[in-house]
Amino acid sequence: MSHNFHTQHSPFGAFASFTVGLHNSPGGFGQSLGEPADQNIYVGYKEKNGDWKLLPFFVPQVSAEGSFVEANEFVHDVSSGEVNLIPMAETEFERSLGWASDEWTAGPIRWKIASPFTQTGHPAQMDEPTARFSFAPVLSSVLQCDNTSGSEPLEIIFGLSSPEQPWRFLEDAGKGMTGFTLGSSYGFATSPGEGIEPCQAFSLFDPKFKDSFGIHRLGNEAGFLFTVPAGEKKSFPIALGFYKEGRVTTGVESTFFYTNYFDGLDSVLAYGLAKQVDYFTLAEKRNAELDASFLSEDQKFLLAQATHSYFGSTEMLQQAGEPLWVVNEGEYRMMNTFDLTVDHLFYELAWHPWAVRDVLDLFVDRYAYRDEIRLADGSLVEGGLSFTHDMGSVNQFTPPGYSSYECAELTGCFSQMTMEQLVNWVCCAVTYAEKTGESDWLRGKEKILLDCAESMRRRDHPDAEKRDGIMKWNSSRCGSSGAEITTYDSLDVSLGQAGNNLYLAVKTLGAWLLLEKAFDQLEMKDQAVAAQESADLLATTLSGKFEEETGFFPAVFEEGNQSRIIPAVEGLVFPLYLGMTEVLSPEGRFSGLLQKLREHLRNVLVSGVCLDEVSGGWKMSSTSYNTWFSKIALSQYVVRQLFPDTMSGKAEAADAVHANW
Amino acid sequence: MSHNFHTQHSPFGAFASFTVGLHNSPGGFGQSLGEPADQNIYVGYKEKNGDWKLLPFFVPQVSAEGSFVEANEFVHDVSSGEVNLIPMAETEFERSLGWASDEWTAGPIRWKIASPFTQTGHPAQMDEPTARFSFAPVLSSVLQCDNTSGSEPLEIIFGLSSPEQPWRFLEDAGKGMTGFTLGSSYGFATSPGEGIEPCQAFSLFDPKFKDSFGIHRLGNEAGFLFTVPAGEKKSFPIALGFYKEGRVTTGVESTFFYTNYFDGLDSVLAYGLAKQVDYFTLAEKRNAELDASFLSEDQKFLLAQATHSYFGSTEMLQQAGEPLWVVNEGEYRMMNTFDLTVDHLFYELAWHPWAVRDVLDLFVDRYAYRDEIRLADGSLVEGGLSFTHDMGSVNQFTPPGYSSYECAELTGCFSQMTMEQLVNWVCCAVTYAEKTGESDWLRGKEKILLDCAESMRRRDHPDAEKRDGIMKWNSSRCGSSGAEITTYDSLDVSLGQAGNNLYLAVKTLGAWLLLEKAFDQLEMKDQAVAAQESADLLATTLSGKFEEETGFFPAVFEEGNQSRIIPAVEGLVFPLYLGMTEVLSPEGRFSGLLQKLREHLRNVLVSGVCLDEVSGGWKMSSTSYNTWFSKIALSQYVVRQLFPDTMSGKAEAADAVHANW
Repeated sequence: MSHNFHTQHSPFGAFASFTVGLHNSPGGFGQSLGEPADQNIYVGYKEKNGDWKLLPFFVPQVSAEGSFVEANEFVHDVSSGEVNLIPMAETEFERSLGWASDEWTAGPIRWKIASPFTQTGHPAQMDEPTARFSFAPVLSSVLQCDNTSGSEPLEIIFGLSSPEQPWRFLEDAGKGMTGFTLGSSYGFATSPGEGIEPCQAFSLFDPKFKDSFGIHRLGNEAGFLFTVPAGEKKSFPIALGFYKEGRVTTGVESTFFYTNYFDGLDSVLAYGLAKQVDYFTLAEKRNAELDASFLSEDQKFLLAQATHSYFGSTEMLQQAGEPLWVVNEGEYRMMNTFDLTVDHLFYELAWHPWAVRDVLDLFVDRYAYRDEIRLADGSLVEGGLSFTHDMGSVNQFTPPGYSSYECAELTGCFSQMTMEQLVNWVCCAVTYAEKTGESDWLRGKEKILLDCAESMRRRDHPDAEKRDGIMKWNSSRCGSSGAEITTYDSLDVSLGQAGNNLYLAVKTLGAWLLLEKAFDQLEMKDQAVAAQESADLLATTLSGKFEEETGFFPAVFEEGNQSRIIPAVEGLVFPLYLGMTEVLSPEGRFSGLLQKLREHLRNVLVSGVCLDEVSGGWKMSSTSYNTWFSKIALSQYVVRQLFPDTMSGKAEAADAVHANW
Repeated sequence: MSHNFHTQHSPFGAFASFTVGLHNSPGGFGQSLGEPADQNIYVGYKEKNGDWKLLPFFVPQVSAEGSFVEANEFVHDVSSGEVNLIPMAETEFERSLGWASDEWTAGPIRWKIASPFTQTGHPAQMDEPTARFSFAPVLSSVLQCDNTSGSEPLEIIFGLSSPEQPWRFLEDAGKGMTGFTLGSSYGFATSPGEGIEPCQAFSLFDPKFKDSFGIHRLGNEAGFLFTVPAGEKKSFPIALGFYKEGRVTTGVESTFFYTNYFDGLDSVLAYGLAKQVDYFTLAEKRNAELDASFLSEDQKFLLAQATHSYFGSTEMLQQAGEPLWVVNEGEYRMMNTFDLTVDHLFYELAWHPWAVRDVLDLFVDRYAYRDEIRLADGSLVEGGLSFTHDMGSVNQFTPPGYSSYECAELTGCFSQMTMEQLVNWVCCAVTYAEKTGESDWLRGKEKILLDCAESMRRRDHPDAEKRDGIMKWNSSRCGSSGAEITTYDSLDVSLGQAGNNLYLAVKTLGAWLLLEKAFDQLEMKDQAVAAQESADLLATTLSGKFEEETGFFPAVFEEGNQSRIIPAVEGLVFPLYLGMTEVLSPEGRFSGLLQKLREHLRNVLVSGVCLDEVSGGWKMSSTSYNTWFSKIALSQYVVRQLFPDTMSGKAEAADAVHANW
């Protein structure tokens, strides 16, 4: 597999990344960006002829010198001649992306960045050392050089450009470090020592101007020149740190949680250097776990890359002394998007389940709403409880009860997701409580669970007599001409429309099964029975939608829709994950429906239907090309666990395609 | 004159600008940038056919919608059809740049931005209302529409794009305002009312998506749609505000002074709206003063544009409760560059003289140093006191005694400016004290003045017997191969080299005359006499450098240099400004030298020498093309006051050229 791709390297909860890996592209330090930063990254070694061989993480720069010395005839007095920067070809270096690290090997050098993670308890209960270690906005990096077989000293470099402004020389701070930062926002540092020369210039490889400290403070390129004596092997630790003080969000005003433990960037960098060994040890532990897992190489890669990206989107804030957790939505940077919460739920339950609970609580406390529903004749009747699609975007919290995404009078992208998010709250909440055993928390949410159940039923039909289990009526928030959509907002109607939708119906079934279990747990017998009845009704209706003649479920139960979709089974992931094997047994309560879903899967996991004819990748819908890997993974899990016989060789092989995407 | 140029509109001391005016270019809110921001600015009116006529302050945008809805077939359901945005041609609108405002008139609309200023006392002694009014990081703007002759309502718009992220809807803040901000960094607001509709969308003129508030919070364009009924004329106030909390500088850690008085952007905007009338009244007062002045139209323009730029570079900080004043150097953003301090000295003495004093104090307290000087034989002997070129760059203060600019082993740009800054401190300090009458402050600087005098003399020659008044020896900070330069760092050797330099020698003479006056004032008789002797010695030496055969002073007194320079007289600006008419009288103590300078000027202010052959503009040196307008202005002042007969018609006419630059 090509190693030509960007990866985010991110401290936990800092909403910040050091991005690197795409060839001939810049990257570097980015604070809360929606795209990679634009700093050149220079890592490489000097050849005997004076040329520099560098990892290809830079684009040629126009020296900022020109803007100062235009029309000045003097400057070239001190030109030190031409220096060639040679980007390494793809074949000249290797890359190894681990679960919690990334490593490049090129000739005599090895550069590694660690972004370790571990299980954590709730930040509000953390002792100070744990909080500092868990949330320090710093990455550990090490540049190694093996000159054991060399007969001359070898020079290697680590440096970055900064297109916007000069770097600040950290040595002035006098904290036993040397390095460079961009103001107080981010930067890199190492421990001073023999063979370590800090450099700052308009061109790092051809520094024409040096002040009394041997640098030029107006230079927008900075780094370290390391010299490794002949016959030696050396490792140079480099901490990569971030810091942002003051209020970072509006709507709800909050600051970064780590500001409780670090008074600024310099402290962060010093801490990062001090804890290098611990961070690398932890990263190696995670890497070893992933290596030892039963996953295929492609799956390991997908999980590693996804984990790196996830951490780049995490944001541990605090408001009035209370921790406030946000996961941002990649390039869109929407905050705690519920459709994503429900996807990384499983990851978070494994590593920091408190994050799930805090988000669910915030949805109840600030982002719940009640609506009406619009019936066929256009009349509005009481709807019920639901939750917003998100909580804002780009650090701007929306007002209580409203998302940044959802608009009125639409039938596609940006329409309301009332039913989808209602089901998401139920699935996340019960999964969280069951998995963690926090029944007290669930008991505190009794009223919400009851309101959710009632709201789910009313969206089927306000008249109990007319219910068949499937959502039909749109929220009043859609306005008179709009219709609810699902999380699959940029696919076609097969997955986009919420009403009469196969995907959402099966997910609703999953939610009823969870509610049944939860009410049981809470000893709310009547409610448990009612949930069971709702599930059975829905399952029966669903079974009736199967087209015996084609062997498929239609994606939408109206207007003769003939799209075929994989996420028909997505909603079963929740009971499956909770080990509810009995109810999902092929011989159990839903044997009829499960048999039909099996046949559906067997017919969709076929080239030209939901396996892409050209690439072989999984297409969520036979009639759309857009996709999300997180959703593929959910369906894959259900297919592998519940319908393994439908997993054709071709379907199995597709992970290589997904990894390539 | 063309009205196609950018102007910075800037609150006092916020190091922030709202930049607008260059045609077909974006601009908008910029916090501490080195270049204009990149927001489209939409100001215009809707024509009867539905097209929008807009001031040409935007570039066509690719809608951010695409990144969300790629491959989505639904979205175009709600397209409201094409909307034409027509940028007005240069002939379709007028612009009027005032000393403290900027105004565009186009068809029925008039848009005005005020950036008023007034005399202020020291911030540390300001009462709270004065401090709030003086340093509120807000601009007042008003959009007027005259529909008195219209028969239908007229729609007009004010809006901005934000390439980086969506706007935040301010109405949520519930403070009686409506508007949009970018997080808590900057934004615009008005008072809600009839005919005022806030809009936010991917495309402001074609909003496809609206939430329950009538906006789309993911939209990166936002503004107000104002409707003016037929037969009416209306004015809509718009406050343009900035805010930056927390530490903004490193090296010396400081926060913005205004954070004492405003807790965030919303308060700033509310204050700006409340004080609109006061701010506009003050701006009109300044405008009237400039209009009524004796200056030519070109000079008025140059002063107005320079004043706007100056305020964009001002930064009122505070460190540990003490005000900390910085002026940043335009695109380079070096902090309190001494060569610029000495240029805007005169402006600051008129409006906020405390700024001069604070900078001089900081140069003494943190940015003074002592060096050695290198003699002809390469030996180093004691030099003396001087000051750094600057105090850092881009909010990064350098360590005590060092600038961001000055390097070693150079003979051109980025070399040391030891003698230049030494003379600058003397000229600024005495000018400040004499102008303000603050003799107590000057008395407190006795020791510094004495050290400066000694340092000036030693740089001529450490052996008093061998002095002729002219600086010859370079600072040890230049290293063994470097040489000091002057502020004219990007011109050729005629102005670039410090030693034996005509410009610097006459400026040194100016400094001696000021020292003589200061020591007299402080009743330090012996020192006054010594300064007088130094001045006379220097004047005599200088007179001897005049080339009777050519009628010029050479720019550099060595190697047969034949460059001709205007700033030969620049250094006389200080005694002239202080009204020292007697010593500068043509019949006085320096009659010989002044007569020769007069002849020099008569010969340089000639086309093909120091008037550019093509444009007619003033060239600082006959052998260089680069220039700075602030330096032209200083020399112009001296020429007009002291040598008016050398001001040829061509030289006089050049201000139109300078305005055009």
